[in-house]
This record gives sequence, structure tokens and C-alpha cells, in this order.
Amino acid sequence: MSASKVIAIDGMGGDNAPEAVMKGLARFAASGYYFIIFGDKSRLETLQIPDDISHEIRHTEVVVTSDMEVMSALRLGKKSSMGLAIQSVASGEAQAVISSGNTGLYMALAKIILKTVEGIDRPAIASVIPGKNGRAVCLDLGANSESDVKNMVDFAIMGEALARSIFHKENVKVALLNIGSEEVKGSRLVKKTSEILKKFLDSYVGFVEGDDFGKGDVDVIVTDGFTGNVALKTIEGTAKYIVSELKSALGSSLLAKIGAFLAMSSLSKLKDTMDPRLYNGAILVGLRGVVVKSHGNSDEIGFANAVRFTMDILNNNIFDRISEQLEKSKLHYLEEGINQ
Amino acid sequence: MSASKVIAIDGMGGDNAPEAVMKGLARFAASGYYFIIFGDKSRLETLQIPDDISHEIRHTEVVVTSDMEVMSALRLGKKSSMGLAIQSVASGEAQAVISSGNTGLYMALAKIILKTVEGIDRPAIASVIPGKNGRAVCLDLGANSESDVKNMVDFAIMGEALARSIFHKENVKVALLNIGSEEVKGSRLVKKTSEILKKFLDSYVGFVEGDDFGKGDVDVIVTDGFTGNVALKTIEGTAKYIVSELKSALGSSLLAKIGAFLAMSSLSKLKDTMDPRLYNGAILVGLRGVVVKSHGNSDEIGFANAVRFTMDILNNNIFDRISEQLEKSKLHYLEEGINQ
Repeated sequence: MSASKVIAIDGMGGDNAPEAVMKGLARFAASGYYFIIFGDKSRLETLQIPDDISHEIRHTEVVVTSDMEVMSALRLGKKSSMGLAIQSVASGEAQAVISSGNTGLYMALAKIILKTVEGIDRPAIASVIPGKNGRAVCLDLGANSESDVKNMVDFAIMGEALARSIFHKENVKVALLNIGSEEVKGSRLVKKTSEILKKFLDSYVGFVEGDDFGKGDVDVIVTDGFTGNVALKTIEGTAKYIVSELKSALGSSLLAKIGAFLAMSSLSKLKDTMDPRLYNGAILVGLRGVVVKSHGNSDEIGFANAVRFTMDILNNNIFDRISEQLEKSKLHYLEEGINQ
Repeated sequence: MSASKVIAIDGMGGDNAPEAVMKGLARFAASGYYFIIFGDKSRLETLQIPDDISHEIRHTEVVVTSDMEVMSALRLGKKSSMGLAIQSVASGEAQAVISSGNTGLYMALAKIILKTVEGIDRPAIASVIPGKNGRAVCLDLGANSESDVKNMVDFAIMGEALARSIFHKENVKVALLNIGSEEVKGSRLVKKTSEILKKFLDSYVGFVEGDDFGKGDVDVIVTDGFTGNVALKTIEGTAKYIVSELKSALGSSLLAKIGAFLAMSSLSKLKDTMDPRLYNGAILVGLRGVVVKSHGNSDEIGFANAVRFTMDILNNNIFDRISEQLEKSKLHYLEEGINQ
């Protein structure tokens, strides 16, 4: 374990575990990272992983299933592959943890084991969404079903730090999702949040609307967890619908089939651009450690992308950035009479 | 004016008015409908409309522009082509009004002039959204930036009546948009609304998530105006993004261009399926009269679809259906301690 950076892996989480996890990790030879893989040792060891992947396997007995009661899942969860992987970040042994397991349980265990960053009450789920002119960090995508002004401001601060880390640039544009770009429009929550952000977050540029998800003109889109989750799933649903219509159109006549065959190479490049696996990896941000969620149905390509996403975040001092902005925001919360 | 059904038309609303309006109406020869077109008579008369379209033109002097102050827009608005068209529904002369003008002003004027249906506090914007397995009436798409439980239940009642009218079937499925399909998930607003709907709305089937917009498995999707507006614009943005990526993929090589040429007939059928003009027409529901909003940048095809949408609604006794369900819901509001 001489490697400088260590990532803890939940070997058993997700629909395609442990195969997708192990095959995904097999792509990281000589990466400079060391992986601690938690799970059923006998199963994990049959899935051979090349020697040039720095790793070890740690056996865990407990399995948490999705039909368990919340309380027993939480109690047992601490001893599961997911819980022990999080624990290794809490103990300082690893700097990040990745799991494709149940999001709700992952968030709950991570909050209990790692605790939140000082000054942050509510962690958020953040992910990168592609658009015509660039990608945007979006949060909260569903960690919270209700949010207040303080939470929203915190999301903006965390989103800014994430965008700087992931996009490797200092000048980022942070925007707030609203139902109109004029100042008078929107909910009280959004209007109040905007007022505070204007005062101290230099990267704040104002409102965007739902169609900005396809544009990609800003680097961060901040929203409450309810709206963010609906928007994320609406993007997925719309994309699936259009792709299915495209497929049926291209299979609808002989001429169309020949055309599709000739255009195949270009169409498969398009498929790659749209491939959700390439955008796999969401961070549960606001916790004392880098906690990355990989999609529940990730295959090895998806899982490998979640690993790359994690490395990107680890290579930047994201926590210092968050703390610095939280400090700046405090004064403005006081002014607005908002409890910190 | 012997025709049985009369539609009032704002001849001046929208980016392409009055041309798009007049050309759109020219498609409705011998429709059984009579159109009263409000606007600048000299301009409207130069745009020849065939004699077999039953219509008359009524001159209006006042023009409302989008850079006016709210109060003066409202005051002047009553005398504008939009306001006088709404007025003709209030007086009973017309049964419906269509405008491509500013949504906020249209809603404000319609509320002042027509008033809401008894028992409904807040009108909603509803529209039909396509999906793989069918279309769904969705509301509220942005008339309200905040909603309470009573408003949400009203949206469900109005959505049910609309779906029955537009889809010509009695057995419709009404669903509530949430961030998970399990009962424990979601905001307090959504959970409380679901409890009440379960008690009296037989067509209520429970929660759907954002990706149901692409599926089309339910007939009505109910949500608050903030979330609904974000979802609608997210669909538009995602569709635009994918289409632009598809176009650039099909133009990226000679082979792809030839392929696209061969598949052109099928691809243009796809384009038709996706054409937002074919889904043009949103209803401001909850008002004492059928008030239809056509998209601000509608061309003649879009405007004609808004007219067809209006006729579909007029052919059904939508207001009786709403009143009947409102009556049933009253008891349950009382039980839950919600003010009607």
C-alpha cells in the first residue's frame, strides 16, 4: 500500500456486481491509485484482475438487500461491503469511495459514518450533464426532497468547487434554475437564493431555464432536489424516446435501412456522445470525504467512468474551495436572518 | 353568425402575427365554426382569407408590447386584440379564445375578465406531451410558481376532465409526478396530494417519475407549476440538443450524407413525429371559458394545430366534468382540514 492515493470500492453494489466492478477496475493498470475492494472474497477472487492493478480484496459477510426495513438495512449496512468501504474513508485509509448500490442507503450510511462538512447541513447529489456547448455540473439531483435557502446557497458553493475541479478552470459560471429569466419570475425560494448569491458568489450569473440542460452555456446549474431529480429523469426519458423513434424510423423501409448502414460509423459516434455510461458517476457532495455513486445498472464501461470521475475530483483540493466560500457566505446568511 | 360554435381569435398576438394567424385559419373551410378575428383591420384585410371560412374582422386600436409596465399593460390590455377576444367569451358571444401573445398577460387578463370556475382558486397551463406509448395531458406547466395541496388536487381534477375530452375516452390514468415511485418518497406537498387523490379520484394511479414524459403510459401527469415548467423546457432543450447532434453526425462524412439522403423519407417522418408545431396549443384551464395559448413563435401550421386543439376541447362538456369532480373532492378537503 505504498501508492499515494487510495480508493475504496464497494465490490458488491449494483445490478451487475461484482463482475462489472472488477472488469471496470481492470482498466486501471499503473494508474498511481491503489484500490481496496470490499466484498465476498471467494466470488471476487474468481474474477481475475491483472497483477498490474494495485489492489487488495477485503472480505465482508453482510449483504444488504433492497427489501429490508430501513432500520435493519442501516444497522447491517455498516458491516456490509458498502458500509466498510465508507468506513475506510472515515478512518483516513482511503480518500474516496465508489459504490453502485442503493442511493438512499449509501447517502444515509455516508452521513452517519463520515458526517457532513462543517457548515453544510444537507449533502447533495451532483453529476455532469452534457449540452451542445459544454458540460454542466448539476445539483441537487435528488438527495433532498425539500430544500431551504441556506441549502440552495450551499449547493451553489459546492457546485462551484466541483466545476472548478472537474472542468479544470477557475472562471466558472454558476446559474440558478428558474421558470423564467426575468428577476420577477419564480418561487420565493429561488428569488431569495438569487439575492444572496449575488452578494458574495462572484461566479453567479443569474437564472437559467430547463432548456439550458441541452445548451450547456453555464458550468453549474443549481436547483432543489425535487426539481433536479425530475429534470434529470426527464432528460433520460426524452433521450430514450427520441432514440427509439429514430431506430424505428431507420428500420421502417429498405431504403432507410441501407441509408442507416452507410451512415453507421457516424451514427455510432453519435451513440457514443449520447451514451449515459460515459457520464456515469455522481458525487454525494457535502460529506467529509469523496463519495461517488455509480449507476445501479452500470456495466464495466460505466463503472470505469465512475472511477475516472473520482480520480478527477481527488486530483483537486475541492474541500478547501468549499470551506473558503462557506466562510464568505456566513455574513450574508446573518444579514438575511437565515440560521446557519 | 348563424354557426353554432364561435371561436374568438387574437389576430395580433405572437411573433408571426397577423400572417401566421390568418394563414392558419385559412385551413378551416366549412369547419362548422365561426371565427371572430380581433386586430388591426387594415392589416388583417390585406391578408386575404377565402370566402368559405366563416369569419369577421373586428378592428382594435390598442397594441400591448412586452416592454410595458405590468399595470399599464393590464389597463391597456383590456382594449387590445387579446383583451377584446377574451371579452367576447365573457359576453357569451364566443365559446373559446386563442392567442399567441404573451402568456403572463394572457393569464392575467383572462383571470380578470373571465374569472375562475367556482371552486378553483388557481388556473393552470395544460398541454399534451408525446411519449413512446401515447400522449399525456400535463399540468401545471408554469401558470403558478408556488402551489399548495388544494391547487394540486384541482390540477388533477382538471387534468382528468381534459384527458377525457382530448383523448376521447372515459377510462384515463391520472398520475402525480414525484422523485421515486415508492410511497415514502417525495415532498410533503406530493405525499399529501396523493393521500387525498386516493380517496376520491378513481382514475388516480399513483406516482410517476420524470422519465414517464418519454414513456406515455399514463394519460395525465400532475405537477406544480415550477416543476412542470422546468420539465417542459427540459424536454425541449434535450430534444433540440439530440437533433443538433444527429444532424452534425449525418453531415460528418460523405458516406453519412449519402446514407442520410437514402433514409430521408423515413427521417422526415421522424421529424414530423417530433415537430413541436404538431403539439402546439396549451389550455389555460380553470377559467370560465376555453382559453387556448398558441406558442409565441407559431407559424401557420402551429396556429392551425392550436385551432384544432381548441375544437377538440369545445366538442366535449369539459366544464360539467370538472364541476362534478370538484363536488366529490370537497368532502376530502374538509377531512384533511384544507380550506376550500
